Amino acid sequence: MSEHPVDFTPLFYPKTMAVIGASTNPVGAVKYVKAHLNTGIKIFPVNSNPKYTELEGLPVFRSVVDIKEDIDLAIIGVPKEFVPGVIEDFQRKVVKFAIIFTSGFKESGRDDLEKAVLAMMKTVKTRFIGPNCLGIYHPKGRVTYFPTFPATPDVAGNVSFISQSGGHTAKTNWYLYTRGVRFAKTISIGNAADLTPHDFLPYFKDDPDTAVVGYYLESSKDGRAFLKRVREITPVKPVVIWKGGQGSVGYKATASHTGELAGNFKLWLAMAKQSGAIIAEDFDVMADLLAMFSFKIQLPRSNRIAIVACGGGNAVETADIFEAGGFKIPELQDETKKRIGKFIPEINSAFTNPVDLGEYGYVPEYFANAVSIVSRDPNIDAIVYIKESSRFPMFSVNFLMSAEEYELKTIKTLVDLHEKNKKEGRDIPLYLNDPFIAEDLESLRWRVSFRDKLATKGIPVFNRVDVLMKAIKKAEEYQRFLVDVKEGRK
Amino acid sequence: MSEHPVDFTPLFYPKTMAVIGASTNPVGAVKYVKAHLNTGIKIFPVNSNPKYTELEGLPVFRSVVDIKEDIDLAIIGVPKEFVPGVIEDFQRKVVKFAIIFTSGFKESGRDDLEKAVLAMMKTVKTRFIGPNCLGIYHPKGRVTYFPTFPATPDVAGNVSFISQSGGHTAKTNWYLYTRGVRFAKTISIGNAADLTPHDFLPYFKDDPDTAVVGYYLESSKDGRAFLKRVREITPVKPVVIWKGGQGSVGYKATASHTGELAGNFKLWLAMAKQSGAIIAEDFDVMADLLAMFSFKIQLPRSNRIAIVACGGGNAVETADIFEAGGFKIPELQDETKKRIGKFIPEINSAFTNPVDLGEYGYVPEYFANAVSIVSRDPNIDAIVYIKESSRFPMFSVNFLMSAEEYELKTIKTLVDLHEKNKKEGRDIPLYLNDPFIAEDLESLRWRVSFRDKLATKGIPVFNRVDVLMKAIKKAEEYQRFLVDVKEGRK
Repeated sequence: MSEHPVDFTPLFYPKTMAVIGASTNPVGAVKYVKAHLNTGIKIFPVNSNPKYTELEGLPVFRSVVDIKEDIDLAIIGVPKEFVPGVIEDFQRKVVKFAIIFTSGFKESGRDDLEKAVLAMMKTVKTRFIGPNCLGIYHPKGRVTYFPTFPATPDVAGNVSFISQSGGHTAKTNWYLYTRGVRFAKTISIGNAADLTPHDFLPYFKDDPDTAVVGYYLESSKDGRAFLKRVREITPVKPVVIWKGGQGSVGYKATASHTGELAGNFKLWLAMAKQSGAIIAEDFDVMADLLAMFSFKIQLPRSNRIAIVACGGGNAVETADIFEAGGFKIPELQDETKKRIGKFIPEINSAFTNPVDLGEYGYVPEYFANAVSIVSRDPNIDAIVYIKESSRFPMFSVNFLMSAEEYELKTIKTLVDLHEKNKKEGRDIPLYLNDPFIAEDLESLRWRVSFRDKLATKGIPVFNRVDVLMKAIKKAEEYQRFLVDVKEGRK
Repeated sequence: MSEHPVDFTPLFYPKTMAVIGASTNPVGAVKYVKAHLNTGIKIFPVNSNPKYTELEGLPVFRSVVDIKEDIDLAIIGVPKEFVPGVIEDFQRKVVKFAIIFTSGFKESGRDDLEKAVLAMMKTVKTRFIGPNCLGIYHPKGRVTYFPTFPATPDVAGNVSFISQSGGHTAKTNWYLYTRGVRFAKTISIGNAADLTPHDFLPYFKDDPDTAVVGYYLESSKDGRAFLKRVREITPVKPVVIWKGGQGSVGYKATASHTGELAGNFKLWLAMAKQSGAIIAEDFDVMADLLAMFSFKIQLPRSNRIAIVACGGGNAVETADIFEAGGFKIPELQDETKKRIGKFIPEINSAFTNPVDLGEYGYVPEYFANAVSIVSRDPNIDAIVYIKESSRFPMFSVNFLMSAEEYELKTIKTLVDLHEKNKKEGRDIPLYLNDPFIAEDLESLRWRVSFRDKLATKGIPVFNRVDVLMKAIKKAEEYQRFLVDVKEGRK
């Protein structure tokens, strides 16, 4: 809990790594050894049991003290009672950072053990992450917490994420990765006995690799200090916070807290909003927001939305959801309607807002053209447009194409649309919604293909229109915060 | 709009079918010919153009009048201006039912054409569905509106569904089919010029194949008559209504309605609730409710929920969502906690509610056993339990099994759990939530496999915990309506 910013270089770019507690148990600490073989990081397995002389082809040390090199990063995966003893060794050894993977402390009611660990931490110079955490995922530095999570520079991205839940750390990384989002740095912070969530904010503020910071937080200890640092970064980079344990039951379940916490939570939320943080009500909203910022979708200047769809049902459904969320769905200008009417006959279609292009909208060029025309209408601030990739095989028949050809054609017109939008300097965000309309494997295959191909072109795909609506609302609130900051009101 | 119940047998079990307007255009009416080849239904393609002498191996008639047999069901797919003329032919021919697939009437502003069709309808005995609709999907009678939608008795189910949107008809059938739900009868009713949504209610009430009735409604003309019939069926079978066009914009977009409709909609909603109908706020909630009723999940007697999960993050997240929705998440009895504690050590786990079984919960038998123990706790009325099928490959490694073995073991323990629950006469509904935690093809493959295998065992899988929460809330409200009816309060 230092006052001064910490130099995290040895944590994120370790040259030497000790894995303390590595054994033949495949789900134990040895997985950190496996995960970092052939990364260029020098790995030292450590186990006090003399029966281990070699693991994964590497010699095993009895203690970190026996290693000649200084240690940038140690992983501690010994049984919980041995953790204080392991830390004691750091009194005689340079260990810059350590991740305590071991759990069974405060979170399991063993406050005594947590106190013993804390006391020992104060006797050494090492800075700690954990206990009860997964550790670090940092592809650029080739550090990961799961051998199955690829950590190579080619999958490095711009989202940095800190989580107090190991489960949510893995879920956020995995889920968003499969939706095309890439991460800069992820920290599973666990009980945060030494380094806390707010220690990383000054670093992220200056980190050129971080474009957006995400948080999953449960407890709000040091709340004020945290939010003070949040306020320093929000004018520069967005901070998205998913707060777990919002209800009284959830809150009790998060830790050994009792009484009056729901009230505190509401106060905390108000302060967080005041500091420019973006509060996501749940995982899905957080995920959509991180995707929006990662893909650098322009912020909407206000809440006037246009919806472009094929089929009246879809158009009405989306309009209902946005209107219920407080958005305006304004009339389009006559000029806009006329321009769409030039190539789409007004049969089985409606050019009011929501725009229903009917059957003609399934012609990829017509659809993209209509979105482009709507994007020039001064009555609107953002466009939500709907493509149903699961239906590509069905539609393609009508145009005497293979489904693959139809998909590629659709993607090309959408990429051109986005590029044109950018080139012409329009600041209208375009959000692409591909709702789940079938969940058989064949339909899901088309979804994955469509989404992955668009992601490589820098266009994210959003699944659920209700979640997307909430995320756009948050993005618009953040835009207003930025304007307030710029104009000196905040 | 008859006062007396209609005999729908020729519509749902046609022996003869005329497809009027069938041509070589593959997206035209000929698809109804293709869809019913080799079904046992005698098909008569009709086209006034003499160039068509044969289609799909069948002789083409110039007019229905030329066909010797009486026609149970005619499909009308001629250009819109020709529709009145086609109906005129029915003056000289027995045509019991007709589906007007053709669109371009009232819904496109052509009220004149719709009036002409209505006037002609009054001159014949035929009953009509449409115009501007897909028609009927009735697997037991081998009738379908898409050649790609299988309509054979082996895929017949117990959900009957009526929709004013063709797009939502197809979406509902397709989406729920891929989630393991099967349909009794689906009617895409379009503009409902003759037969209206409420004409089918007395039939559904007595239909032994229908266990639940679903609706997608936009306009609420004849609202009172409709709700009167709803009130007659709700004490016997649930009626789930998804009302589109809820906002002012959506409402305007639904049809040629103007002014003061938002107020009417709220009145309509209140009346619908009073009649025992279950109002779903959106497609997803409707889908979960239809799945619940189709799979005959017991109704919860009240709103006290237990949550069983592996991982504190998951448990807290689910608790937050249910608590925000107004559910109670009561403490479990000490006896319950003790019984779970007998086989799961209280390390990395919490037996308060929400129940977090920690790492031990990944042992399939332990997990199912814990759910079973919780189901006997008198403090709770329903259980939501979480399985993450996308993680099967990851977990299975810890138990030295293949992912396939782990999946089968998990399924076996869950099926046993449900059977035991039923056998012991407990009326505690168990809801299985499998949240999307990854969307790569491999993860989705596990989801589909897990869901399909459980569906064949009569256990539905729910995707989104926020939607599931809303659906359970509706189910509980319906339970209270049933109690009120039984006890004479309604």
